[in-house]
Amino acid sequence: MRKPKTKLNLLRQRIHIIIYGSDTRAGRLFDLILLGLILLSVFCVMLETVKGFDVKYHHELIVLEWIITLFFTLEYLLRIITTNKPRRYIFSFFGIIDLIAILPMYLSFFLMGSKVFSVIRALRLLRLFKILNHPKFTGQSQHLLRALDASRRKITIFLYFILISTILIGSLMYVVEGEENGFTSIPTSIYWTIVTLTTVGYGDISPATPLGQFIASMVMILGYGIIAVPTGIVTAEFAKTSANKTEPEKNKCGNCGSENHYTNAHFCYHCGYPFTTN
Amino acid sequence: MRKPKTKLNLLRQRIHIIIYGSDTRAGRLFDLILLGLILLSVFCVMLETVKGFDVKYHHELIVLEWIITLFFTLEYLLRIITTNKPRRYIFSFFGIIDLIAILPMYLSFFLMGSKVFSVIRALRLLRLFKILNHPKFTGQSQHLLRALDASRRKITIFLYFILISTILIGSLMYVVEGEENGFTSIPTSIYWTIVTLTTVGYGDISPATPLGQFIASMVMILGYGIIAVPTGIVTAEFAKTSANKTEPEKNKCGNCGSENHYTNAHFCYHCGYPFTTN
Amino acid sequence: MRKPKTKLNLLRQRIHIIIYGSDTRAGRLFDLILLGLILLSVFCVMLETVKGFDVKYHHELIVLEWIITLFFTLEYLLRIITTNKPRRYIFSFFGIIDLIAILPMYLSFFLMGSKVFSVIRALRLLRLFKILNHPKFTGQSQHLLRALDASRRKITIFLYFILISTILIGSLMYVVEGEENGFTSIPTSIYWTIVTLTTVGYGDISPATPLGQFIASMVMILGYGIIAVPTGIVTAEFAKTSANKTEPEKNKCGNCGSENHYTNAHFCYHCGYPFTTN
Amino acid sequence: MRKPKTKLNLLRQRIHIIIYGSDTRAGRLFDLILLGLILLSVFCVMLETVKGFDVKYHHELIVLEWIITLFFTLEYLLRIITTNKPRRYIFSFFGIIDLIAILPMYLSFFLMGSKVFSVIRALRLLRLFKILNHPKFTGQSQHLLRALDASRRKITIFLYFILISTILIGSLMYVVEGEENGFTSIPTSIYWTIVTLTTVGYGDISPATPLGQFIASMVMILGYGIIAVPTGIVTAEFAKTSANKTEPEKNKCGNCGSENHYTNAHFCYHCGYPFTTN
Repeated sequence: MRKPKTKLNLLRQRIHIIIYGSDTRAGRLFDLILLGLILLSVFCVMLETVKGFDVKYHHELIVLEWIITLFFTLEYLLRIITTNKPRRYIFSFFGIIDLIAILPMYLSFFLMGSKVFSVIRALRLLRLFKILNHPKFTGQSQHLLRALDASRRKITIFLYFILISTILIGSLMYVVEGEENGFTSIPTSIYWTIVTLTTVGYGDISPATPLGQFIASMVMILGYGIIAVPTGIVTAEFAKTSANKTEPEKNKCGNCGSENHYTNAHFCYHCGYPFTTN
Repeated sequence: MRKPKTKLNLLRQRIHIIIYGSDTRAGRLFDLILLGLILLSVFCVMLETVKGFDVKYHHELIVLEWIITLFFTLEYLLRIITTNKPRRYIFSFFGIIDLIAILPMYLSFFLMGSKVFSVIRALRLLRLFKILNHPKFTGQSQHLLRALDASRRKITIFLYFILISTILIGSLMYVVEGEENGFTSIPTSIYWTIVTLTTVGYGDISPATPLGQFIASMVMILGYGIIAVPTGIVTAEFAKTSANKTEPEKNKCGNCGSENHYTNAHFCYHCGYPFTTN
Repeated sequence: MRKPKTKLNLLRQRIHIIIYGSDTRAGRLFDLILLGLILLSVFCVMLETVKGFDVKYHHELIVLEWIITLFFTLEYLLRIITTNKPRRYIFSFFGIIDLIAILPMYLSFFLMGSKVFSVIRALRLLRLFKILNHPKFTGQSQHLLRALDASRRKITIFLYFILISTILIGSLMYVVEGEENGFTSIPTSIYWTIVTLTTVGYGDISPATPLGQFIASMVMILGYGIIAVPTGIVTAEFAKTSANKTEPEKNKCGNCGSENHYTNAHFCYHCGYPFTTN
Repeated sequence: MRKPKTKLNLLRQRIHIIIYGSDTRAGRLFDLILLGLILLSVFCVMLETVKGFDVKYHHELIVLEWIITLFFTLEYLLRIITTNKPRRYIFSFFGIIDLIAILPMYLSFFLMGSKVFSVIRALRLLRLFKILNHPKFTGQSQHLLRALDASRRKITIFLYFILISTILIGSLMYVVEGEENGFTSIPTSIYWTIVTLTTVGYGDISPATPLGQFIASMVMILGYGIIAVPTGIVTAEFAKTSANKTEPEKNKCGNCGSENHYTNAHFCYHCGYPFTTN
């Protein structure tokens, strides 16, 4: 099956270019249709869960979803057929996502009404992250990722500190407030601590004793203050990578070795040596 | 009507200068009166909706609003009459706002008690953004806008990431918590996710199952952490534009006029001209 | 009365040094006692409002407060007597605060049980801001104030933008949600908008209609994003003033004029000229 | 007992290396087992407080905890026996923590069912902070700590300002809102102020009067704005320490060893030694 007759092979190649590539006009059109269908499909999943809407338009939604599912099934099969390494696609991250997203509709014949299966189709959304590889965004998103990657270790230490503090404060509040004030167990207390430390503050659980309110106040001020830490880490990295970007290494004088020349400099600012290529 | 008798034309010109300009004393006074009336008018709209106040002073409010409306109508007509390009004003952003803001009072003869029409008058407030063009603020606000504009793309990628995450987390929480805990539909679940991720935390919907509370905790820590991203982006831009601004003007080559020389430069990087005093 | 007998005058001078100055040992001791009494007095005001505590120790609290009040009255009189410009003190900010803080106890003879009068004594706390003038903190707090002062205008523009947006969004939500969902008037709606935009999120008022929840989500993301703006402004200023501080102007070579020498440099990094005073 | 027979002494030394060190294979294995047991032990404490779980698996939990406690008791005794300075360990911070964490199980014979005693075992978690001394993290965490330490004074002034503001606003709100709206005492009002200022916003107490809502709005905007201050302080410090760190090591004088020379320096700023290659 790998090398069929030439005519069929040519068609396979053409479809491959349309589906996998985005350089040709047809390829870009295909990408746009796919994007539209993903959004439409996720929109369907959302509307299905809205009671009033689902009762009114149940039939229409089902029909629409079958059309979408058939299209995605076709796309899945074409992706397998037209690629030279079908296994690599099938077991790739997006290959598995694609399969998982079309299965629920077919399984709905056997397993009726399962909410979980229905919602799984929303995973298709993950495909939209592929857009960040688009040349228009690739520089910006790499800059973002590089800054986050550079601050990875510091953030890990910070999260480690937060985690231990959270368990200790949660245990303390469980003892201070007790089950009668909503702190029914240590895990619940830890949940409350995270809600407070991150300044979310639902209010579903809130301290009632004076001591508990005092500790809660300390936790809030702690949370309010230490948000400065991840922000400071990431900002410093952004500022650094942004500074590095504007000062390329080649800006070094070939004559006297002085550095940090402007990219549009014609002469070395130190020895007056003329630049040729810069 | 474009070119009436000279005397009328002169009056037209004078009014034009008062209404459109802010260089003359009368023009500045007119601007101040306008500002005061806009604030008074918005204040009226607000007070009208306060039950206790409206019952007591209903008559006075109506009279006051008619006075304001008549003034704004007069101003609208004068703006059209005195300008040479009435169409340009009428179909401009602020021209449409001005019209929309005076219509509700006249329409109230025919359509009584419509709340929407009444509140529309608050749109007059948009005119206050014009003040940011004032020379006193223009440098500062342009600096602000430039920094925000420079970080536009990165913020877009960030919002795109947030949007997809929000839908996925919302779908997950809908399955985990279900309708019995307030997560009645995926859109509602997404609303809850945004409330949690942005650390607002109303508490109108809050997770009740242990697994739900665990996922919620993760979302909170995620939201608490990623606030560092927009902050880092904007801060890095502010620091950059602010650094560019503080580079002193004296670092200018006396020969070719190129700028931003290093303070310890011996030669102009652009023309090779030797510096003496620097 | 300005120039009494020499002996009395000497005593007056001595007390003046103790009360107003903080260079002598007695002056520092007096400052410490004053600090302690202010904290004790505010602590009393707080405890008085706690029902359970006030019932038990009402008598003790009253006695303690009379002692404190008599001390502060004595201090107030001594401050007037010992200074050469009594009017300047009496009508200064802290002079008025001092008077306001001792009056309530004396007025309590005539006006019993007024809560407002009782709480006014907490204003004494304002005096504690004087500590920031202490040489130990003065450099740091001036650095803080300078950075905040430098970003004053940008923050004003930002607040102006927030204010207008808040009124417009509040008016919109009043129309969308209406009085049946808690948005009883435009001022209340504006209050809700501020609660949401600042990510406080009490949950005492929260949107119930799908459209309202959608607008609320937008407001939250807006609020989550624009916190980057004041943070960015202030951080950029901090970084700038902090950078300026580490590069004093005197670090300039007297021989060749090159700048930015380290404060502990012994020789010019550019011409090798030896520094003497640095 | 200090100097037993050689054979026993050798064993003591070996155990000492395993328990205190982490350079040998056995030492690292011991550290890993310890880490696992600490987590398991804290997990047990947490599960015990979850009603449904405790009822089902009460017996298993008790057995597991006795095993863990016996292990930690053995470790505690071995640490005392094998060290040359047992007193120093016993009265060190971690020595006391270790003792406190094993006592509750033994005390449970005499004092049944005390919740406080049970939860105290979670203090074992504090030991996990020791990991931050690991060479893999030590550079990063020292960088974090140095930046936080450098901004210590400014943060203190900030917290001082927050504390005074909080008491004053709390007192004001107590007068404005009063006991009928949940502001039952000044301490409670201060608690509300902290909840609001830090943008936590539980909603357990929220202003009901128009004036109270207005003041609350101001407090929120204040809190939303001043989060910029700690963030700005810490970020500026991070950027500074991070900038110092990136200055390359090669900028070191070959003559006197002083560091941080400018890349374009011709002479060492410390000894005046001329640079050739730089």
